[in-house]
Amino acid sequence: MTNDGPRRADAERWTIRARGFDAAAVARDGSNFLIGNGYLGVRGTLEPWRAERFPAVTVSDTYDMADGRWRELCTAPNGLYAEARLEDGTELLGDTDPERSWRELDLRTGTFRHGTTASGADGPRIVAERFASYADLHLVAWRLRIEARRACSVTLALGIDGRVWSLNGDHFARSEPVREEAGPHATRPNVVGPRLGWSSTTVERGVRIEVREGVRVEGGRVHGADVALDDGRLLRRFVVDVPANGTATIVRAFAVASSNDVDPATDVAGDPAGAAAASVERALASGWNDLVADHARDWERFWELSDVAIDGDDDAQRALRFAIYQNRIATPEHSDRLPIGARGLSCQAYQGAAFWDQEAYNLDVFLNTRPEVARRILSYRWRTLPGARRKAERLGYRGAFYAWISGDDGEELCPDWFFREVVTGRPIRNHFNDWQMHVSPDVAVAVRDYVDTTGDEAFLIARGAEIAFEVARFLASFVVWIPHRRRWEIRRVLGPDEYHENVDDNAFTNEQSRSALVFALEAHARLREVAPDALSELRGRIDLSDEELGAWRDVVDRLHLPGPDTRTGLIEQFRGYFDLEDVTPAELERRLIDPAEYWGWPIGVAVHTQVIKQADVVQLLARRPDLPERVTAANYDYYERRTQHGSSLSPSVHAVVAARLGRMDDAARYFRKSALVDLGGDYKAVSGGTFIGGIHTAACAGTWQAAVRGFGGLRTDEERLGLDPQLPAGWDRLAFSVVRHGGRLHVEVRPDAVAVRADAANDAAVPVRVREARFELAPGERRVVEARR
Amino acid sequence: MTNDGPRRADAERWTIRARGFDAAAVARDGSNFLIGNGYLGVRGTLEPWRAERFPAVTVSDTYDMADGRWRELCTAPNGLYAEARLEDGTELLGDTDPERSWRELDLRTGTFRHGTTASGADGPRIVAERFASYADLHLVAWRLRIEARRACSVTLALGIDGRVWSLNGDHFARSEPVREEAGPHATRPNVVGPRLGWSSTTVERGVRIEVREGVRVEGGRVHGADVALDDGRLLRRFVVDVPANGTATIVRAFAVASSNDVDPATDVAGDPAGAAAASVERALASGWNDLVADHARDWERFWELSDVAIDGDDDAQRALRFAIYQNRIATPEHSDRLPIGARGLSCQAYQGAAFWDQEAYNLDVFLNTRPEVARRILSYRWRTLPGARRKAERLGYRGAFYAWISGDDGEELCPDWFFREVVTGRPIRNHFNDWQMHVSPDVAVAVRDYVDTTGDEAFLIARGAEIAFEVARFLASFVVWIPHRRRWEIRRVLGPDEYHENVDDNAFTNEQSRSALVFALEAHARLREVAPDALSELRGRIDLSDEELGAWRDVVDRLHLPGPDTRTGLIEQFRGYFDLEDVTPAELERRLIDPAEYWGWPIGVAVHTQVIKQADVVQLLARRPDLPERVTAANYDYYERRTQHGSSLSPSVHAVVAARLGRMDDAARYFRKSALVDLGGDYKAVSGGTFIGGIHTAACAGTWQAAVRGFGGLRTDEERLGLDPQLPAGWDRLAFSVVRHGGRLHVEVRPDAVAVRADAANDAAVPVRVREARFELAPGERRVVEARR
Repeated sequence: MTNDGPRRADAERWTIRARGFDAAAVARDGSNFLIGNGYLGVRGTLEPWRAERFPAVTVSDTYDMADGRWRELCTAPNGLYAEARLEDGTELLGDTDPERSWRELDLRTGTFRHGTTASGADGPRIVAERFASYADLHLVAWRLRIEARRACSVTLALGIDGRVWSLNGDHFARSEPVREEAGPHATRPNVVGPRLGWSSTTVERGVRIEVREGVRVEGGRVHGADVALDDGRLLRRFVVDVPANGTATIVRAFAVASSNDVDPATDVAGDPAGAAAASVERALASGWNDLVADHARDWERFWELSDVAIDGDDDAQRALRFAIYQNRIATPEHSDRLPIGARGLSCQAYQGAAFWDQEAYNLDVFLNTRPEVARRILSYRWRTLPGARRKAERLGYRGAFYAWISGDDGEELCPDWFFREVVTGRPIRNHFNDWQMHVSPDVAVAVRDYVDTTGDEAFLIARGAEIAFEVARFLASFVVWIPHRRRWEIRRVLGPDEYHENVDDNAFTNEQSRSALVFALEAHARLREVAPDALSELRGRIDLSDEELGAWRDVVDRLHLPGPDTRTGLIEQFRGYFDLEDVTPAELERRLIDPAEYWGWPIGVAVHTQVIKQADVVQLLARRPDLPERVTAANYDYYERRTQHGSSLSPSVHAVVAARLGRMDDAARYFRKSALVDLGGDYKAVSGGTFIGGIHTAACAGTWQAAVRGFGGLRTDEERLGLDPQLPAGWDRLAFSVVRHGGRLHVEVRPDAVAVRADAANDAAVPVRVREARFELAPGERRVVEARR
Repeated sequence: MTNDGPRRADAERWTIRARGFDAAAVARDGSNFLIGNGYLGVRGTLEPWRAERFPAVTVSDTYDMADGRWRELCTAPNGLYAEARLEDGTELLGDTDPERSWRELDLRTGTFRHGTTASGADGPRIVAERFASYADLHLVAWRLRIEARRACSVTLALGIDGRVWSLNGDHFARSEPVREEAGPHATRPNVVGPRLGWSSTTVERGVRIEVREGVRVEGGRVHGADVALDDGRLLRRFVVDVPANGTATIVRAFAVASSNDVDPATDVAGDPAGAAAASVERALASGWNDLVADHARDWERFWELSDVAIDGDDDAQRALRFAIYQNRIATPEHSDRLPIGARGLSCQAYQGAAFWDQEAYNLDVFLNTRPEVARRILSYRWRTLPGARRKAERLGYRGAFYAWISGDDGEELCPDWFFREVVTGRPIRNHFNDWQMHVSPDVAVAVRDYVDTTGDEAFLIARGAEIAFEVARFLASFVVWIPHRRRWEIRRVLGPDEYHENVDDNAFTNEQSRSALVFALEAHARLREVAPDALSELRGRIDLSDEELGAWRDVVDRLHLPGPDTRTGLIEQFRGYFDLEDVTPAELERRLIDPAEYWGWPIGVAVHTQVIKQADVVQLLARRPDLPERVTAANYDYYERRTQHGSSLSPSVHAVVAARLGRMDDAARYFRKSALVDLGGDYKAVSGGTFIGGIHTAACAGTWQAAVRGFGGLRTDEERLGLDPQLPAGWDRLAFSVVRHGGRLHVEVRPDAVAVRADAANDAAVPVRVREARFELAPGERRVVEARR
């Protein structure tokens, strides 16, 4: 047992824990203990909890609109519903007593566990665990172990809760319980009762959502089994007698499938009821250990590629792994048709839809660790080009204007109206969808980055170029020619800083737009060289003329780019920004009439001041490590103190830039702020009547960026894979892997040295730069660069 | 005495009367009984009233800014201050008892009179009268007649009240009383006491404002005279003993001069103290009857040219003459350096400055009756080109962007901030000055109309062309080229309807802009033909290239003009207007949280609806009598019911268009609404803490337009002077004069016929169209066109 200390210490660095129950934190905890697999997410609520405490099984690809409200993902009937009662009526699964009960999320295997010990001298101890399988994406496996000290009888009610928590209306036109008594299920050993299910059809699009659930009991004696419908729950009730010092194990398989599930090989939608039933049967036929093993193996492979290890700061380590974990389970890795939701699959908030965050944040993690996932996400953008084209046309532009809130088909999900001004109660027209146009160039720039990082020209030819061309076409229709300045300008936009709307020549937006146009021209040139036939087919299909290419070139040449002031080095966030009132965020807070007020349009306290919601010029700095340090420092200093961080996207990018400037205290502080967005729970889960809880998936990815791009100093804008690492105080080691052109590098940063090892499986040497040292690393080769002192 | 009836009836049609005192109407009455002469205005308050009841002597050309607030005209010390007390202490001049006292404004001679009879059996009767002389613009002449029944002693205190009512801060850095005992004054017969005065210097610009006052008494015995400073008033106190059945007459000359007064011949500023003193002395040396006669002769000449006579509706007649009177006295006819204030010289509200109203409303009256005044007003716009150029440059444009609020030098007087949102109390950024850009083309189009109406090519060459070119230059820098639509657009503007800001392609604005550009090109062509040297000098001076002219031509050719829908005939007010919520003004009124709320930006009830503040497309219709009746009718019907008439500019233009459509009930209703803006007093004199009382001078001019362009059917857009008259129910006759190319026509419309007489003094025949009849009228010739029946 002497080895147990280090092992336990290591486990702590992989585990999120909680005790007790804080009603105010119920929304946050349900998100933080989320399990998922990119196909579905199951909130970390306790089994007997019902809608009031926000349990949810959020299913990807089930967008539906109810009551004319927001189109969002559906919450499936909860097949993890359970109660476990002792003879005296004590319910154990919902116990939250801080003395007896505990909860934990094992990040290494994506498993949520909780347990309690019945009060009294010798009551039973229970442990429940669950995971959303990466071996079978439809499956949620659940196990309850009852360890008796004295003999006991536990009355169980396991089943499906059909009364779901839904943010925006009831999505089910039809929703009914199902009992399936026949088939292999009926004859399987130790199975208790029939297979239960719930069959639903959504109200707008008629999506069928099928859930199935089956139970097997080992150990103990089962009796008194029946099935009943009770207050919207279809419950399988039975009693397990557990002998003294004996153990009973209840294994449950809960599966979800929808009629939108498509076989990627055949492109054919399957039979969701059959698929869910089959998942349940496969799981019940399998041993628990096998179920766990298949799933854990997948996570093990994931962490080999994706872990970022920190020595010297266990809190940071745990929070960073939590971020990497959440970023993964939010992502529909299995599909190239689906977005990464801004809140992943942790709830319906933000409609399960992608924002610009997807490309600016989430994607960066995959791009540098598992580029095949990045390819799928960008393929999703390619598949949603028709929706983006329709939006552009509707708003009077050409090409592809990507949706501000993008679901399965790329139609704009962001309504014009949804906020109310808090003080007057008056509805407000927001301009996210029509003015925050940087989302389109952001997507194109992400395609460029993908192609640059992977060298995947096949993707460029097949999909990337079309995105690039349609975005360029959009931009050329958005810019306006100002004759007396002889330049193109981009007017009436909303930059990342949403407190200032209707601005002109936003530095970030113009920079991204120009980059996207340059990329379109480069992509065109490349295709002409390597794939002239594909180019000619594409140009014919989208009717792209030489004249139009010439127009893009002209915009590239003459688009106004707000550059650094020659004297101060400052880049003005948009024209006129420096003329606004110069106050601090703290001062503005004092001007609030109601603490719930929005700071931005139309009459928010920040509108006419220099206080900004989130990184905007700093976002630009993060993407331009080539800028002179003087410029970076001047702008970081200027904007940092004017930033309210009203968005969870903001801290991480500050960390990246601060680390680059060697401001390690700032960087560490912003890293922590980003890492604790969810774990620290210092956010409002409900704002202006709207539930906006759930996991901030982009902040999770941002935390990775803060670690790898910030402290790891990763640079991907050069010919070589560049590393300019610098650790914050107290960190002894930072280790991570990155991939460049298919070659994987294992990086280990210590205060005194940087070790870089090329994976033995690489095909070719990888050109690397570590600080001033430039070298090529052959497969398996390792190089250590000592720190300058 | 049998003839007295008709004469009294005629007098009623020239007289505004009031009795009693209504505290709520004190601001309105002071404006409605205003006297003035375009150099100064004196509010129709009673002599003993002090600042609390808004007396004011508003002096043109004294713009000054105090305490960093609004730059505005100054209120001079009040040299009409007076008290008249009987032995029992009764003060007579301030008497407002409705049984005893009366007030009246004689529009024919611009004279305000009031009087009372002392209570008791045989107390004296007094009458005070005043006028602002058109024979000596510095002079306000005042007379008090005391008619005794039994012998009485009246104690008088006449002098200068130095405590002035000022809207925006104290404008006087120095302000001190003056006694002048020497000179001719001292030896003049019947003069009582020294010449009194008040000498002030303004705080911002150091303008000296000098007032002087002298008194002469005839009849009665004067004794006990002294002079004292009493609570900010410099008072000349004396007693007049009036014998039984005797009369005492106190004549007072009050003169105002400022150091900004410039001799138009020498362009040299004079000595204001000397000028004011000289005015006083001239007046005191003159008999009262001579003073009156010189002044009345000027008014007689004015009414010969400007009267619009109505038979059959005395209320309409009186209100219309009131409007014509107020429009005149608001106008600095004597100068070509000064604007017509939106509230004239009736108070400091709206800063004594010009808005677009000046060209769109006030000017039209002069253009068609006394074009030499129109020339002076347009010369003012020419003189303020430097200010307009500076504004354009400051906001990133070229050419002349006229001030939204334009004082003496054309600098923008409209601050970015002055409103507060009523519900939240939050300051609001208004966009009158930067987005309501139609003021510039409005000025250019007025120049075009002046040249068209007068044929005054000398003005075009010397001043008009420069305005036209600089406005065209401005417009060419404001439009933006939209490549994929292959057209120029005008984005982010505020049209006349100020409830919808930040709109694109406002129909009115685009139409005016195109007209202004067309005019600039036509003016250029004309100058090239008739004044090539002047053109070449001008082009050199303003650096106007052929390339720039080509650019204007391109904008003329390809500027988007929102035209009538081919099916409905509707012109969309701006892009997207028809998509807004379609509700009634009445419904919006119910949505108000606070009745004082502004309906427009940023969160007013009208912002996202089709309810508009004032005529916008209807304004366009009024200027386009050439549009098909179907289009006019469709748009009038559509917009009329969505218009809240939140501006006093709105009703008259509705009257013009309704009359053209033959909707005589509508036309009469809107004529009345316009005519009663001030007389009816149904407006807020104080809104959101800001005094906005005073005479609505543009509505006055609009009332003239409703009568002459509406019922008179005047059309000035054709080769001939056109008349399509139509009288409202009850009107037996409408008579007015208009001038075209120097030829004056006297028009008399009756229900059954239209008589047109060319003035005998005309130089040449005038081409006329009356309905379908086209003819030339030789000097002195008269033609009657019978009505179609």
